[in-house]
Amino acid sequence: MWFNPSAMARKFNTISLIGKFQSTDGAAVTVLDLAGYLRERGFDVWVEQDTATAIGGAAGDFTTAAYEKIAAEADLVVVVGGDGTLLNAARRMGERAVPLVGVNLGRLGFLTDLSRADARRQLGEILDGRYRAESRFMLDAEVIRAGERIFHTLALNDVVVNRGNLGRMIEFELRVDGEFVYTLLSDGMIIATPTGSTAYALAANGPILHPGVPGIALVPLCPQALSARPVTLPDTSRIEIVLMPPHDARIHFDGAAYCDGRAGDRLRIVRSPLAVRLLHPEGYSYFSMLREKLHWSAAMPRP
Amino acid sequence: MWFNPSAMARKFNTISLIGKFQSTDGAAVTVLDLAGYLRERGFDVWVEQDTATAIGGAAGDFTTAAYEKIAAEADLVVVVGGDGTLLNAARRMGERAVPLVGVNLGRLGFLTDLSRADARRQLGEILDGRYRAESRFMLDAEVIRAGERIFHTLALNDVVVNRGNLGRMIEFELRVDGEFVYTLLSDGMIIATPTGSTAYALAANGPILHPGVPGIALVPLCPQALSARPVTLPDTSRIEIVLMPPHDARIHFDGAAYCDGRAGDRLRIVRSPLAVRLLHPEGYSYFSMLREKLHWSAAMPRP
Amino acid sequence: MWFNPSAMARKFNTISLIGKFQSTDGAAVTVLDLAGYLRERGFDVWVEQDTATAIGGAAGDFTTAAYEKIAAEADLVVVVGGDGTLLNAARRMGERAVPLVGVNLGRLGFLTDLSRADARRQLGEILDGRYRAESRFMLDAEVIRAGERIFHTLALNDVVVNRGNLGRMIEFELRVDGEFVYTLLSDGMIIATPTGSTAYALAANGPILHPGVPGIALVPLCPQALSARPVTLPDTSRIEIVLMPPHDARIHFDGAAYCDGRAGDRLRIVRSPLAVRLLHPEGYSYFSMLREKLHWSAAMPRP
Amino acid sequence: MWFNPSAMARKFNTISLIGKFQSTDGAAVTVLDLAGYLRERGFDVWVEQDTATAIGGAAGDFTTAAYEKIAAEADLVVVVGGDGTLLNAARRMGERAVPLVGVNLGRLGFLTDLSRADARRQLGEILDGRYRAESRFMLDAEVIRAGERIFHTLALNDVVVNRGNLGRMIEFELRVDGEFVYTLLSDGMIIATPTGSTAYALAANGPILHPGVPGIALVPLCPQALSARPVTLPDTSRIEIVLMPPHDARIHFDGAAYCDGRAGDRLRIVRSPLAVRLLHPEGYSYFSMLREKLHWSAAMPRP
Repeated sequence: MWFNPSAMARKFNTISLIGKFQSTDGAAVTVLDLAGYLRERGFDVWVEQDTATAIGGAAGDFTTAAYEKIAAEADLVVVVGGDGTLLNAARRMGERAVPLVGVNLGRLGFLTDLSRADARRQLGEILDGRYRAESRFMLDAEVIRAGERIFHTLALNDVVVNRGNLGRMIEFELRVDGEFVYTLLSDGMIIATPTGSTAYALAANGPILHPGVPGIALVPLCPQALSARPVTLPDTSRIEIVLMPPHDARIHFDGAAYCDGRAGDRLRIVRSPLAVRLLHPEGYSYFSMLREKLHWSAAMPRP
Repeated sequence: MWFNPSAMARKFNTISLIGKFQSTDGAAVTVLDLAGYLRERGFDVWVEQDTATAIGGAAGDFTTAAYEKIAAEADLVVVVGGDGTLLNAARRMGERAVPLVGVNLGRLGFLTDLSRADARRQLGEILDGRYRAESRFMLDAEVIRAGERIFHTLALNDVVVNRGNLGRMIEFELRVDGEFVYTLLSDGMIIATPTGSTAYALAANGPILHPGVPGIALVPLCPQALSARPVTLPDTSRIEIVLMPPHDARIHFDGAAYCDGRAGDRLRIVRSPLAVRLLHPEGYSYFSMLREKLHWSAAMPRP
Repeated sequence: MWFNPSAMARKFNTISLIGKFQSTDGAAVTVLDLAGYLRERGFDVWVEQDTATAIGGAAGDFTTAAYEKIAAEADLVVVVGGDGTLLNAARRMGERAVPLVGVNLGRLGFLTDLSRADARRQLGEILDGRYRAESRFMLDAEVIRAGERIFHTLALNDVVVNRGNLGRMIEFELRVDGEFVYTLLSDGMIIATPTGSTAYALAANGPILHPGVPGIALVPLCPQALSARPVTLPDTSRIEIVLMPPHDARIHFDGAAYCDGRAGDRLRIVRSPLAVRLLHPEGYSYFSMLREKLHWSAAMPRP
Repeated sequence: MWFNPSAMARKFNTISLIGKFQSTDGAAVTVLDLAGYLRERGFDVWVEQDTATAIGGAAGDFTTAAYEKIAAEADLVVVVGGDGTLLNAARRMGERAVPLVGVNLGRLGFLTDLSRADARRQLGEILDGRYRAESRFMLDAEVIRAGERIFHTLALNDVVVNRGNLGRMIEFELRVDGEFVYTLLSDGMIIATPTGSTAYALAANGPILHPGVPGIALVPLCPQALSARPVTLPDTSRIEIVLMPPHDARIHFDGAAYCDGRAGDRLRIVRSPLAVRLLHPEGYSYFSMLREKLHWSAAMPRP
């Protein structure tokens, strides 16, 4: 099994709410509603600082807390927004593995599976211990320039090496566990976790990896070689991408942070020992979620 | 690491040779040459019975043995032929995990990596204990009809559900760990191990899985739904395909055996506890082999 | 423009109805309803003979006619069923180019775009001259064995060379305008018209060709060469596929007729001078149909 | 036939040489050698101005001419470089349809098919009238902002709408002949001629269009919708892409020029009445070129 509910049952005391950044209009009502609900139920409720500022007024009724404090002390984080909001929170909670629950603001997300309309009831059940806990591994990525680490971050979805500002095709060398694999001229390469395999990597024709597969997908972007197919490596692999002249590349992490790379820079990626813990309502099913997101019921009519 | 040379170092006493079935012309010279070489070096040499019959004459100098005896008593099997010959031997050695060495008769194979020209030297080194041992898992597949098991076999590459004799598209239901995933109208489905991911599954646009990934790839064949993408499952998954009316299907195992399936039949696939042990020359590299087989050096010229 | 409504406006006197073969339950009511409606409006109404037999009883009120007579004398054919029913009628009307109208029995078809519920009104408008006429070209295919033509037919969707009864991969040589293109080991090849480009060829990852493109798509099926991509040829091309040993192939035409091919057989395909004329309701739009069929509104949620 | 040699036979008097821009080291020797050869044969020889400057010294022996003069007065242009050099020259010769011959500096190009080693002989034959002439259509593209045309150019390969400087996914509306087709969230879209179908579009999984197909391929880049497949339109189509907020796009033309697009901008593309005329040696074959470029002989070994 790729999760073990019983082993992860736990008590929650302090619960923090984090809302979608910058466009909290939609999120505000839900954040406040859930904050009120949690207080009624006797929990210690914190609203994340930027979320509280964005909401203004009514958020003043609740304790606010910075990300650092939440990561250090909260027992549960409820994210209200889309998958992007949860990705961001996950990275920032990374070191402490605070469990996360995601409430989407409209459409079901790959990661945010509580619906706004039913959030009180579903969250209530989770707090009563009726949930499925799941662990999702992250990538640890660093960029080395002339022997120095110039960038370091975690990624739950993917690391994407892409064309730089100039918009020209780039060339790089791929090495795995110290061994040369190939040199590729292309628009770039996606290095994705199973979680990221249904995000950008899927649009680039990459393989879907079930979250229980300990693998990392390498998906080339518009490769100038018809035989450059996606490859899935064991999650124990040390992946290295060495940028080659003449063109610069931009390296994106979960579509949020980025770092501009130059010829000679080495991007090194391994599985992080840190993992994100997601709590789902009891009825949660990965396949059922996938079926809805990918419209698997929407078969082409028979000719 | 996906193999552990030191843990598998061992002594060989009885070594068996198996040649390519039915067209042993090319194989005969190599089989006899290696048999002579192994006898010179003092090993007990057996030539597989059908191989000996096909070779005739000179093979009479050597002890012959049936597959069963080889599986039960040999310490090493040297396969002379292509990947298909090795696949077949692997399945038949399955229960005993006799180590296999593959000698190809021309082009490098995905599994048969000793070259005919250099076979004596490379085999010699392996016998001296200078080799890389690798374990490849197999699938255990059974077909259930009306509650009865009507077919059961192992597969090292893949199980392929395909259109039946009538050549009509088929429909089936996919279930994983007892849970419904989807119903698909298509030409069929490939269920492949990492070993099989570079065989038929690759031609059907499936993902390459490194042999160290404990995953099983599901690759639909001409699906009548644009969203039916390949999915890789954990190797602990119980995969079930339930055939639906109106059209019959044919189920292939490693492209060798097959079973005709009817509406209502259930194909059940799990990872077998049995594994195939391949011995490679010390310099062996999976990526180097892949690079040669997939022409990864053959980049498209830049526009 | 790929159709010219004004040039094709015409008078209809004799109108024939053809229903879905073998499962006319659903079709019967609609066939009889439309037959009654057409008689009320004063047209000469014929029900195709096999359709009438399948319907039985009430169909006896109407004149019946064999396909040959319909092809020779009818001014319009109304097909009630799915795209398969229309494909079949189209091939059989081929030589005479009798205009066709398609009424689907449930889901919108790529070719059958009148809805059952609204068929009277839409058909009425067409009979009043308010329609869009469209011409779809067909393929003329023949199989040559030892210099003799052993098979000859038309296809509106596609000709598919596929694995034969044995289910083994096949090898063939592709020649265009007498020139060698390549030899391919694969499951087969689809040769599709623009009309067929949204049928089986699409499931095999082929390109969608707008009906106004005078091109023929060649789409390999599971090719054993990563570089074997779909190619679209001018519709003036003479396409030849020469089957090679060792395995037999089966050649399908519009998924209806087929011919078993042997090593040495030559499949020759050219654009037929014959075309199928489809009449659509005035509001018809190819893109709107495609959007609905391919679920183009069903975007993946943003990550 | 997609070209008609006899109709295009012609006399050449003034011949111009154009070398690869900025890295004329490799090109210089060949440009000078061919210039000398052409002078020996009595032609009026012009070396393009920038090419002459880059070569320096020995180029001073020849008349130099600016692009404008060459376009207006030369009878033949010999391009020495890669496909990119020829693309650039083609666009700049566009209005006058001066015939082009391409000499590659190493590997065979899709467009530059004379080899450096054999260039004198092959060019000699072409000058003797022994050649195959071929016409390749171009796209006429303009960007409209607030009703004003802010950019206008020709493209022989493709127009590519891509993510802008910010590197964020973009959204746009596709309209064809004034009709709405779909709204797409993606990395962008390639609009390619048959000539461009073997360039960037091929790396993005687009269909190969034979130069004789009067079609334009639309190939989405990493579309956020699994059903967004490449579509080929008739070359008479009026294609319009309307950029939507929030993110800017960059529009590339033949990988050379570009224009930054903003929300509301309309990119309009039609087939240009102008065409590029390529002259090939008599033995030229499109399929033979494709076979070499795409490694069609490089089949995967049989499993």
